[in-house]
Amino acid sequence: MAEIRVQGPEPELENPTLVEGFPGVGLVGKIATDHLVEELEMRYYASVHCEGLPRIGVYRSGDRTVRPPVRLYVSEDHDLIALQSDTPIASQAVESVADCLTGWIVEREATPIYLSGLPAERDGDNRPALYGIATGNGGDRLEAADIPIPSEDGVITGPTGALINRAAQEDYGSLGLVVECSPQFPDPEAASVLLEDGIAPVTDLEVDVQELVDHAEEIRAKREQLAQQMQAIGQDESSQAQPLRMYQ
Amino acid sequence: MAEIRVQGPEPELENPTLVEGFPGVGLVGKIATDHLVEELEMRYYASVHCEGLPRIGVYRSGDRTVRPPVRLYVSEDHDLIALQSDTPIASQAVESVADCLTGWIVEREATPIYLSGLPAERDGDNRPALYGIATGNGGDRLEAADIPIPSEDGVITGPTGALINRAAQEDYGSLGLVVECSPQFPDPEAASVLLEDGIAPVTDLEVDVQELVDHAEEIRAKREQLAQQMQAIGQDESSQAQPLRMYQ
Amino acid sequence: MAEIRVQGPEPELENPTLVEGFPGVGLVGKIATDHLVEELEMRYYASVHCEGLPRIGVYRSGDRTVRPPVRLYVSEDHDLIALQSDTPIASQAVESVADCLTGWIVEREATPIYLSGLPAERDGDNRPALYGIATGNGGDRLEAADIPIPSEDGVITGPTGALINRAAQEDYGSLGLVVECSPQFPDPEAASVLLEDGIAPVTDLEVDVQELVDHAEEIRAKREQLAQQMQAIGQDESSQAQPLRMYQ
Amino acid sequence: MAEIRVQGPEPELENPTLVEGFPGVGLVGKIATDHLVEELEMRYYASVHCEGLPRIGVYRSGDRTVRPPVRLYVSEDHDLIALQSDTPIASQAVESVADCLTGWIVEREATPIYLSGLPAERDGDNRPALYGIATGNGGDRLEAADIPIPSEDGVITGPTGALINRAAQEDYGSLGLVVECSPQFPDPEAASVLLEDGIAPVTDLEVDVQELVDHAEEIRAKREQLAQQMQAIGQDESSQAQPLRMYQ
Amino acid sequence: MAEIRVQGPEPELENPTLVEGFPGVGLVGKIATDHLVEELEMRYYASVHCEGLPRIGVYRSGDRTVRPPVRLYVSEDHDLIALQSDTPIASQAVESVADCLTGWIVEREATPIYLSGLPAERDGDNRPALYGIATGNGGDRLEAADIPIPSEDGVITGPTGALINRAAQEDYGSLGLVVECSPQFPDPEAASVLLEDGIAPVTDLEVDVQELVDHAEEIRAKREQLAQQMQAIGQDESSQAQPLRMYQ
Repeated sequence: MAEIRVQGPEPELENPTLVEGFPGVGLVGKIATDHLVEELEMRYYASVHCEGLPRIGVYRSGDRTVRPPVRLYVSEDHDLIALQSDTPIASQAVESVADCLTGWIVEREATPIYLSGLPAERDGDNRPALYGIATGNGGDRLEAADIPIPSEDGVITGPTGALINRAAQEDYGSLGLVVECSPQFPDPEAASVLLEDGIAPVTDLEVDVQELVDHAEEIRAKREQLAQQMQAIGQDESSQAQPLRMYQ
Repeated sequence: MAEIRVQGPEPELENPTLVEGFPGVGLVGKIATDHLVEELEMRYYASVHCEGLPRIGVYRSGDRTVRPPVRLYVSEDHDLIALQSDTPIASQAVESVADCLTGWIVEREATPIYLSGLPAERDGDNRPALYGIATGNGGDRLEAADIPIPSEDGVITGPTGALINRAAQEDYGSLGLVVECSPQFPDPEAASVLLEDGIAPVTDLEVDVQELVDHAEEIRAKREQLAQQMQAIGQDESSQAQPLRMYQ
Repeated sequence: MAEIRVQGPEPELENPTLVEGFPGVGLVGKIATDHLVEELEMRYYASVHCEGLPRIGVYRSGDRTVRPPVRLYVSEDHDLIALQSDTPIASQAVESVADCLTGWIVEREATPIYLSGLPAERDGDNRPALYGIATGNGGDRLEAADIPIPSEDGVITGPTGALINRAAQEDYGSLGLVVECSPQFPDPEAASVLLEDGIAPVTDLEVDVQELVDHAEEIRAKREQLAQQMQAIGQDESSQAQPLRMYQ
Repeated sequence: MAEIRVQGPEPELENPTLVEGFPGVGLVGKIATDHLVEELEMRYYASVHCEGLPRIGVYRSGDRTVRPPVRLYVSEDHDLIALQSDTPIASQAVESVADCLTGWIVEREATPIYLSGLPAERDGDNRPALYGIATGNGGDRLEAADIPIPSEDGVITGPTGALINRAAQEDYGSLGLVVECSPQFPDPEAASVLLEDGIAPVTDLEVDVQELVDHAEEIRAKREQLAQQMQAIGQDESSQAQPLRMYQ
Repeated sequence: MAEIRVQGPEPELENPTLVEGFPGVGLVGKIATDHLVEELEMRYYASVHCEGLPRIGVYRSGDRTVRPPVRLYVSEDHDLIALQSDTPIASQAVESVADCLTGWIVEREATPIYLSGLPAERDGDNRPALYGIATGNGGDRLEAADIPIPSEDGVITGPTGALINRAAQEDYGSLGLVVECSPQFPDPEAASVLLEDGIAPVTDLEVDVQELVDHAEEIRAKREQLAQQMQAIGQDESSQAQPLRMYQ
């Protein structure tokens, strides 16, 4: 059976960008992607059934429809795809999920933007730093958008690490955005930096992140449980960037 | 060898409805389905041997015949199939069982009704709430029967979650009935609500649930051991609905 | 390589009966089968090498010959095969052993008699109860021999449960004899009841069980270690019958 | 790739005898085989790479050459092959190693002599007892050499048990020599009995075991660590003979 | 997909030498290889994706490019390849990685130099001893360079052991350099001995190791975390040489 299954009309896209939102440290990628789906009113477009993903059904308040926990959303106006995940990825599924998604991305000629947090001491005053990394020719778009270059050796683990590893293997063009974030708590501010300083300039989108900032506390509380789960998964298996010396 | 094996004459059915009764939280699905098999005097019709199901033999008082623990029963008069299970499903078997059953359901053009409990504080006074969810065109029958729409984001796990996930993947028409129930104990009242407020209106059946209500205490005692086992299996692996934030 | 390998001349048998003697609760099946092999001077006839059986060699006092731990013995005079096992079956091998043996039994058109204990309070005064269960047309022979029908819902687990499950799946004629026995200790008395009240009338054999009764204490002592091992394996995995409510 | 790989000129052998020296209880088989390789100045002839053997390299003092840990040595003068192992065999590799070696042995038409200790109380005064067991026509050579018949039911486990199990399955001619030995410590005396009273008469070799006896204490000390490891592996998995009642 | 994937122009090499730098005891191989890559300004040339390697992405300070954690570097001037690894190898991946790399090495007709530490008491005064071991015709180059012969029986474990085991199996020419090192801490001095007394004379390279010696303390501190991880992996699974009696 098809691992990624279109659930509606096939969109018209031209070399689209795909924003990846698997939950990782600080939930920065998930919060940013969920916000994007909502703000841009993206349309549910495909369900993801890669081997190893949990076989559960998800439904939303006020809607009878049950959907799988990992889904693709699309905005034809913005030539954009978003991967939304309502579940963490078990470590033994990371490899098969990365292979399965990368095959689909390459076939669709989409340019993926992989999102990761970098655990850091966070005080309320300084805007968290953001770095751009890349495979293949992905660096060109980062340069054009003036995304800073990493200032330290680092390593990306978890599903995001596996996805970017596959892109490196294929020498396929992909972008990675790494933002400093809380090592323990959901971090809507860091997610808003991903959107404002990273995704927006790279994709020429305008994204209003005011809500993320205004409701940070509320989002933090609502996401607390998932963040704890991500932390329990531990450093090798949850998506995060780390200084290379901390990984080995 | 065939995974679902007809053990008697092939029934004449036209787009039948299949009620699924794997044990899950509160045993609501199992108690409801067992009651249906008895009340409607449904006929043993096929044995289920999907990979991962326990290889044991079950027999009944007063009868020499040994049968597998998961079986299908049929009522041609009511165009109805019931899946009865005398065993919980191990988490590693959930995926293969869902695939195996879904293949058979699709081939038979049956419409499945998946049953799940939603753990809730229960007092004796209020009738537990019931929600209807669906995949494919399954929502139409729920609308026609005025089954309420979920009032909160939720997730369905366990064998029932895997079955509904597969239906969502295939965009195959299925119904899900979710009823509030005791998180710890067998809950015959909740099962009776599934039957009266859900299965009956959706299938145009009349089901007398008086016995479930009258003998609730006795059923609870008899099922205690299985309920404990289901609880031990834990949230991800036993069939249940939960608020989405509780799952992640 | 062949999983069941003839180790001598092929016997002439016509629709033979096969008595199964895997160790289970109370060791009733093993003690009964071992006794049968000895009393009827059955001939070693085939070695059993189904996947998952322990790869060990067994030899007997006064004989140099090494044999595998699971073997078939034959008596052409009595049209009888006995399965003797010097080893418990690991739970992960139960399925493959049941498949492998059932394939051979069906091909040989043998009628299997599966033996199981039912843990019960045992006092010295009452003869333990015996029940007969069946798959396919196996019930006819039980009726003809007046073997009692079960008086309670029950479940058979372990290798014997897997064998009878497979027979039920194939709707192949098999008999099961369930005898009350000690839940903890080797139970030669219960084994003698299996032979006298079950196997003998069903097969028209005469079996002298006096030795089992006379040397019960000695047999108990000698088998103690194996019985402990079977008990350690636990309820789901060792062969035994249980009230259905105790299994779930 | 070839699992047994000739590493030098192919020897000229006619129905050779193969002495097996995997480490087991008391290290009797290993000590005897190592002594044989040295005394008869046997030539390194093939490396053994059966699935599951540890992937390590072994080298000797004064020699640069790295070799795999399990190797075959040959003496064309004595029509003899010896299997030398510098490593215990993990329990999950026992089956594949037995299959792989037996295939090669049968193809070469070699007659294997399998060696095993039988844990026993040992005092310094009595020469440990030796028994000969066999599969196929292997008993003839034991009879001719007057090797005693076992006086008790027994079972052989570990790699040696798996090898002899496979020979029994194939009804292939093999010999087993079982010697009483220390259950805990390396036992050079028992190894010398294997050589003098078993291997020598059966193969018409003369083997000088004086060194084993004279340096028993030294050998014991040197082998202590491996013996502890073998003991830690435990009864089912390390090669040893046991009374059958102790195994079950 | 290709397991070793060229990531740039294919170099012109003639029977090149490959220096292997997987992390093992004292990190001697990794420190020596990392130094070589830097000193000789070797060019990134291929990524290694053998089954079982961690799926992560690594990036360097001041560079956006993400790379896999195991990579090959090349110097055409020196006819040299270096294998650099930013990750330890999990024990279950050791076999597949050794098979995958050996296939590539043999195909390229490269001569591998495998590097290993030998845990030893180290005082500051004595230069750690170095030994050369070999498979196939690899000993010739060691002789020509006067590398000492081992003075004790030994065993090589871990990925390096698996690589040299495969070379022994194939009788393929390979060299092994074993240096005494700290059993617990990163040992830049021992790594410098590998380079000066082993790799340099064998490959006719000149390698300036002054930096390793001058910054030993700093390197030790920086590598501390990885060294602890290697130690945690334990004796059988991390690459190291040991006296044979210590291994068994």
